[in-house]
Amino acid sequence: MSSSVGIVSAQRASFNTPLQCKSGGVLPRYDLVYETYGTLNADKSNAILVCHALSGHHHVAGYYADDEKNIGWWDNMIGPGKPVDTNKFFVIGLNNLGGCHGSTGPSSIDPASGKPYGSDFPMVTVEDWVESQARLADLLGIRRFAAVMGGSLGGMQAMQWAISHPDRVRHVLAIATAPCLTTENIAFNDVARNAILTDPDFHGGDFYQHGVVPTRGLRLARMLGHITYLSDDAMAGKFGRGLRSGDYKYGYDIEFEVESYLRYQGDKFAAYFDANTYLLMTKALDYFDPARHSERNLAAAFMPVRAGFLVLSFSSDWRFSPQRSREIVKALLHNKRDVSYAEIQSRHGHDSFLMQDEQYFAAMRNYLNRVAKECQ
Amino acid sequence: MSSSVGIVSAQRASFNTPLQCKSGGVLPRYDLVYETYGTLNADKSNAILVCHALSGHHHVAGYYADDEKNIGWWDNMIGPGKPVDTNKFFVIGLNNLGGCHGSTGPSSIDPASGKPYGSDFPMVTVEDWVESQARLADLLGIRRFAAVMGGSLGGMQAMQWAISHPDRVRHVLAIATAPCLTTENIAFNDVARNAILTDPDFHGGDFYQHGVVPTRGLRLARMLGHITYLSDDAMAGKFGRGLRSGDYKYGYDIEFEVESYLRYQGDKFAAYFDANTYLLMTKALDYFDPARHSERNLAAAFMPVRAGFLVLSFSSDWRFSPQRSREIVKALLHNKRDVSYAEIQSRHGHDSFLMQDEQYFAAMRNYLNRVAKECQ
Repeated sequence: MSSSVGIVSAQRASFNTPLQCKSGGVLPRYDLVYETYGTLNADKSNAILVCHALSGHHHVAGYYADDEKNIGWWDNMIGPGKPVDTNKFFVIGLNNLGGCHGSTGPSSIDPASGKPYGSDFPMVTVEDWVESQARLADLLGIRRFAAVMGGSLGGMQAMQWAISHPDRVRHVLAIATAPCLTTENIAFNDVARNAILTDPDFHGGDFYQHGVVPTRGLRLARMLGHITYLSDDAMAGKFGRGLRSGDYKYGYDIEFEVESYLRYQGDKFAAYFDANTYLLMTKALDYFDPARHSERNLAAAFMPVRAGFLVLSFSSDWRFSPQRSREIVKALLHNKRDVSYAEIQSRHGHDSFLMQDEQYFAAMRNYLNRVAKECQ
Repeated sequence: MSSSVGIVSAQRASFNTPLQCKSGGVLPRYDLVYETYGTLNADKSNAILVCHALSGHHHVAGYYADDEKNIGWWDNMIGPGKPVDTNKFFVIGLNNLGGCHGSTGPSSIDPASGKPYGSDFPMVTVEDWVESQARLADLLGIRRFAAVMGGSLGGMQAMQWAISHPDRVRHVLAIATAPCLTTENIAFNDVARNAILTDPDFHGGDFYQHGVVPTRGLRLARMLGHITYLSDDAMAGKFGRGLRSGDYKYGYDIEFEVESYLRYQGDKFAAYFDANTYLLMTKALDYFDPARHSERNLAAAFMPVRAGFLVLSFSSDWRFSPQRSREIVKALLHNKRDVSYAEIQSRHGHDSFLMQDEQYFAAMRNYLNRVAKECQ
């Protein structure tokens, strides 16, 4: 497998200093699961933190010795000779607090009760994640990241790093992201959440003790999500009005190919993802809004920022549209920060940031080559 | 109440000739509930049929003597001196077959079993509706409509009239509609349907006998629908990121104003609308596709058409975009039909067709003035 980081394994870090969340909740202790690729250099200046989006996790690149088909979710981007070149950088992927892939989350056992946290797990925000990630950086001896990067909700974390810890981030790569969600985005999230919250198997978040899972709600949430991650054009190109059996069946089973795709994605997701994590992640998206404390003035919110930025958007992304990226660019330029911006022509909608694309990858590679030179 | 048609009352027509549906199902007999406004002229040439969309019904204009606040859903458009001028036209509104406002539908008693049809109600298509409406026209002695009009799914029925009964329609007013749904539209419908179908209270469509209603599913379907009827801009303008209580509460109750709006709309709808009707209506939308039998050549599908057309679209309507209306126009022009087309500048998304707008109303008025002259 050329240009793969190869076999990887997850590590676990435990933190026993309580984490005070913005929501008022406190986590007395927590674990973060993470993976690293490449080698940390002597002065620890070549580290890149990869922040994940809604359904992501720490397995960003490579594969597992006992499960070679389980390839990291951004493996096309990260590896030897790839845009995020592991011959040059030490790359860290982690599962966010509240996640369901090994880090402490709602399905973890609450030491206070001996039962899964469930509804007792505190609401976590992008700001809380950045704090938890900073502690992981401390543990790994990384004072300053060469770059913090992410797409979508991951890009929000990268921006928050530059605001919360200006002296710890040299560069931010903010991809297919926004300075805050639009009203429409919040609305879609609310429908998805209500699908889960009103599923009789949700039991107010404490379904673990009932031996059930709110699969109906999770499935609907994921189906809806998928529509918004794709573009109208991409869906039309991929499925059109194709029928599964060639003719109308006049029933409620799968009729159109797109229904088959959506239901399959929904079922697959509902079989493994934690409903409480889904809720928390969508709320973190809704809450992220650095301009909230500066009378909606994003430039004022970015005043502390010292990092250089690469901002990338995708032409067909209607969930995090190019317009939203331009708001970020404008606010950074107002602060006289170094910003590179490109709007990538792509028809794959929001999902574009996960796909291989020549223009996109060239923009990443060029920017990171420059970052790498600063590490030498 | 100036320029209102005033007090109206619904009428009921019973049809005892079996209706053979495209789905293969047969309705041995059925009722249609309808209202009329204005006066049918001597040669019965001034009738306009108004076809409704997903959640519409026969109460199109005026109000009820015992419920003055119950104003017809298109009352701004129809009345004395209004664009659809009831001083000139005899206007008919009906509740479609399969509906839940009085016409025979899934909640009606099946004479064969003595129980509500429920899951036994046949799937109905736009073509079936047109046939059932043609029988109503026969009953009223209307050989040829001055116009058949509708928005969205209503526009699809108007187009189908021109294809199925070219000699019975002088004009079609096709507003905010499309020659078929896009893949994305079908996908949204499938999510809405799955919300209902997987609601434990749906009972395979036979919830009537269980004394329950799948309100959770209907509520989600409506919430999702509402997002797609509005534009991103309209939502942002109306709600922005406004908070219900001024600050983040970090919980799953209503936080943002837009959540309050959506949940309210969802609750209201779920309290009165029939879940089976919702399913049927969305399926009729999915199935409508006149070009399906002509190798996706819409011009060929429109070959029988004799009617003149007014086609209107709205700039911010992303569910039935102007591009889709232009497909209709192009196919009609290919057949050398008379077509007027306008793309109305509006920020209200798909809902624009229900709103008062100067440019929109002028286009309707001008076109219908011409139609009225032909009736004299």
